Amino acid sequence: MLNKTKTRALLTTAMALGVGVSTVAQGADPLPSWNDTARKKAIVNFVERTTKAGSAEFVPAAERIATFDNDGTLWAEQPMYFQAFFIFDRIRALAPQHPEWANKAPFSAVLKNDVKGALAGGEKALLEMAMATHAGMTSEEFEKIVTQWIATARHPKTGKLYTEMVYQPMLELLAYLRANGYRTYIVSGGGIEFMRPWAERVYGIPPEQVIGSSIKTKFELRNGKAVIVRLPELNFIDDKAGKPAAIQHHIGRRPRLAFGNSDGDQQMLEWTAAGSGLRFMGIVHHTDAQREWSYDRASHVGTLNQALDEGTAKGWTVVDMKTDWKRVFPYEK
Amino acid sequence: MLNKTKTRALLTTAMALGVGVSTVAQGADPLPSWNDTARKKAIVNFVERTTKAGSAEFVPAAERIATFDNDGTLWAEQPMYFQAFFIFDRIRALAPQHPEWANKAPFSAVLKNDVKGALAGGEKALLEMAMATHAGMTSEEFEKIVTQWIATARHPKTGKLYTEMVYQPMLELLAYLRANGYRTYIVSGGGIEFMRPWAERVYGIPPEQVIGSSIKTKFELRNGKAVIVRLPELNFIDDKAGKPAAIQHHIGRRPRLAFGNSDGDQQMLEWTAAGSGLRFMGIVHHTDAQREWSYDRASHVGTLNQALDEGTAKGWTVVDMKTDWKRVFPYEK
Repeated sequence: MLNKTKTRALLTTAMALGVGVSTVAQGADPLPSWNDTARKKAIVNFVERTTKAGSAEFVPAAERIATFDNDGTLWAEQPMYFQAFFIFDRIRALAPQHPEWANKAPFSAVLKNDVKGALAGGEKALLEMAMATHAGMTSEEFEKIVTQWIATARHPKTGKLYTEMVYQPMLELLAYLRANGYRTYIVSGGGIEFMRPWAERVYGIPPEQVIGSSIKTKFELRNGKAVIVRLPELNFIDDKAGKPAAIQHHIGRRPRLAFGNSDGDQQMLEWTAAGSGLRFMGIVHHTDAQREWSYDRASHVGTLNQALDEGTAKGWTVVDMKTDWKRVFPYEK
Repeated sequence: MLNKTKTRALLTTAMALGVGVSTVAQGADPLPSWNDTARKKAIVNFVERTTKAGSAEFVPAAERIATFDNDGTLWAEQPMYFQAFFIFDRIRALAPQHPEWANKAPFSAVLKNDVKGALAGGEKALLEMAMATHAGMTSEEFEKIVTQWIATARHPKTGKLYTEMVYQPMLELLAYLRANGYRTYIVSGGGIEFMRPWAERVYGIPPEQVIGSSIKTKFELRNGKAVIVRLPELNFIDDKAGKPAAIQHHIGRRPRLAFGNSDGDQQMLEWTAAGSGLRFMGIVHHTDAQREWSYDRASHVGTLNQALDEGTAKGWTVVDMKTDWKRVFPYEK
């Protein structure tokens, strides 16, 4: 995604000079929202060395796989994962059918708008709420529910749609990689069917390139019609050591580039780094309390501690959001 | 994959007549190994109606998903699944490291070349042998083992490499679909990592479009290097009701065309049929004892019973191998 104003200006200049458009397209900055720092240079350097014919590090098109974490890497994740907002909204919507929730934690806390209380039960409570809201319907029904929610729900702090809180520099990176023959995948701890309904529109990433956590499903015939029913039982948690396993399972190829932002991405980055030839390991470091949020080692959401140490020690590309990004969100002027 | 001789003849004629090659390519029969029967017409009719701009049944390129069973649909499966031959060969190769196998069923039977005895223990015994031969190594080590085996092992009846025992008409169908913007997937009860090492070379189907049964894996660092270790524990059986679930999990789109040959494919075909718009459900019926094998309802391998009834009743395309296929294997003259 090129900055439109800039592209238009360049095109106008080019036409005035009688320069061919393809030359201009090559010359235009594919990453206009990135400041001209070492991190941006590392990205461009990696892409050029792996895609230029005759380069010693040339990678055949079929092997150009790039994997991205979602929460905190492609879109924001504060004050809590956006899928948790979805869970809470669904609990509110489903409450009339569940009178028992009024006195049953953690549901009762959600219904009293007590977020802290709702999350007090930790992973177990979150899982219980996830199952109560993500299962019990067909795959098609769930897709509709997500599609409707994502089109209307708004972030409590910014008032923006969640899909507006994506990182403009990362959108440009996705597009830049694709323009150079890379296939971009999401590999997220978030729900696979929670992301698929909007990932193509928002990120340009089609359903078959979305990998995430999942619950079990069951095929059945309902009045003779085949449906897939979502069951309240965990199938796979796509986090930490689960990420490389899921990449191997879904893609069967090792990424050439991987980007994450937390310790949940450490193993994906290690798996990528262990491949032969040139590889790119990137970490988004949330350092900008002004334009976004500033957090790392001590944060409960998106903890970045061990991966930060390893990335720093091994020379991975640790993006400093404050320094490296000219613009964070697309809606900023 | 066009019949080379025919293509070359057509091209020569075209050049002599001064006809443009693209016209000839359009006119050439994309399915030369299919006899001109109703089944062939059904395939061509489906592809044309779903891909011709302006057609009422036009399907956007992104949604052109075609899924194929492997055993008995793309390659042969008699007298037993080819992966079972792999298992037996691996047991023989590993026997020196397992002296206890000499007196332990089902391994002892394999080592005495007693196939019937080895399979007498049913699914449980087969699973035990699969785990003993498919787990305990890294994903990369397993890939090498499969690659080596598939390049050298030969079918006991034909003496051919297993990868030579693929169906020429189905290779043509895969190529024809891809030439029309369809992405071709394997959705097989066979092992996902057993198929990936050779599916691209043999079928033109890349690793990320291979779906199959799987065992659990574990990420770990060995001397600081990231590896994925294969564990002796089932993860997923991609058969019967598992097939539509796996399609949804891996692709997130419903197939427009699905092809199988047994009751193990029935649910995949039903899931495909339940989608809106034009869909194609195909079954390979093994009716040719002369050139291949003849079996259906009573066969233990590739049982085709309920799916045959349903396919016949609902007008799915049931391919009669004997009548519909001009040639079965590529090595036939």
